[in-house]
Amino acid sequence: MATEVTDGPAAGETNGAAVEKTVTFTAVKPQVFVESSKVSDAVAFYKSAFGVEEVNRVTHPKRKADQELPLLLSAEIKLGSSTILISDVSDDSAAPPKAVGSGLVICLETEDIEAAINTAVKAGAVAEGEISEGEGAWFGGRVGKVKDPYGVVWAISTPAAKKEGNVEA
Amino acid sequence: MATEVTDGPAAGETNGAAVEKTVTFTAVKPQVFVESSKVSDAVAFYKSAFGVEEVNRVTHPKRKADQELPLLLSAEIKLGSSTILISDVSDDSAAPPKAVGSGLVICLETEDIEAAINTAVKAGAVAEGEISEGEGAWFGGRVGKVKDPYGVVWAISTPAAKKEGNVEA
Repeated sequence: MATEVTDGPAAGETNGAAVEKTVTFTAVKPQVFVESSKVSDAVAFYKSAFGVEEVNRVTHPKRKADQELPLLLSAEIKLGSSTILISDVSDDSAAPPKAVGSGLVICLETEDIEAAINTAVKAGAVAEGEISEGEGAWFGGRVGKVKDPYGVVWAISTPAAKKEGNVEA
Repeated sequence: MATEVTDGPAAGETNGAAVEKTVTFTAVKPQVFVESSKVSDAVAFYKSAFGVEEVNRVTHPKRKADQELPLLLSAEIKLGSSTILISDVSDDSAAPPKAVGSGLVICLETEDIEAAINTAVKAGAVAEGEISEGEGAWFGGRVGKVKDPYGVVWAISTPAAKKEGNVEA
């Protein structure tokens, strides 16, 4: 059907670039979405259930402790050498519809979100929304999302290096 | 509300418990379930989308290449230092209902499945089924499952060390 196949056909946006850029991923983190305000409970549960250690947390930059909405948006827990994100579904645009419960997302960290998303889209994934300033788990960073042909949502984000600041307003 | 807390109440902290056995987890692996017969396709896709490397595969012990049912049941792909399992939903009892697509499970590997499941259940998780001889991704090993209070299914299995054998019948 095609004699000249230089660039990806059907499935995706091919931004011309014939030279594939090599993308390096620095981390893979399963992300569990829990109901709004349940992040703390969930972290406590995973501590007793699996002996995880909490290594990082992201609080809402604009909420105060006495507000009704939860202050803790996302936490990173460590199990052996792996990191799992536990995130509040209410404030996270990466959450797939009906994400609560078995709604998991796999996060890939890279310094080059654009190249990573382009490569995935070329391979047949569908970009979901725009790359945006991170909220929730990615506060302080940037994040984009793709859904693969099998329905899995992959959040592609910059590493969360700057999180310790946790702006409090 | 409680003066004597010896064992887990409803869904919460049970740190007082009588001599908890320490469970060591040796690996954490997100597991993606894809439609029956799509494991090969999915691995090919993840290679082009994310540059993963296939490091292991489990074929069905009783099927032959010319049968209608798929031969490849599960594959392990590597992304950086992380491993992700891609499994055929048709032959895997760990698959949550409607697991295709965003149905992910997180696998934890340990030598002591019983202790791990007991600890999780004490903390408030619910055991799903019995510990069984592994099929699919865990062929040659053993696997048990728990569902946590947030709806996430955790497959707790022995390490897949003996997989290379891949019995062929």
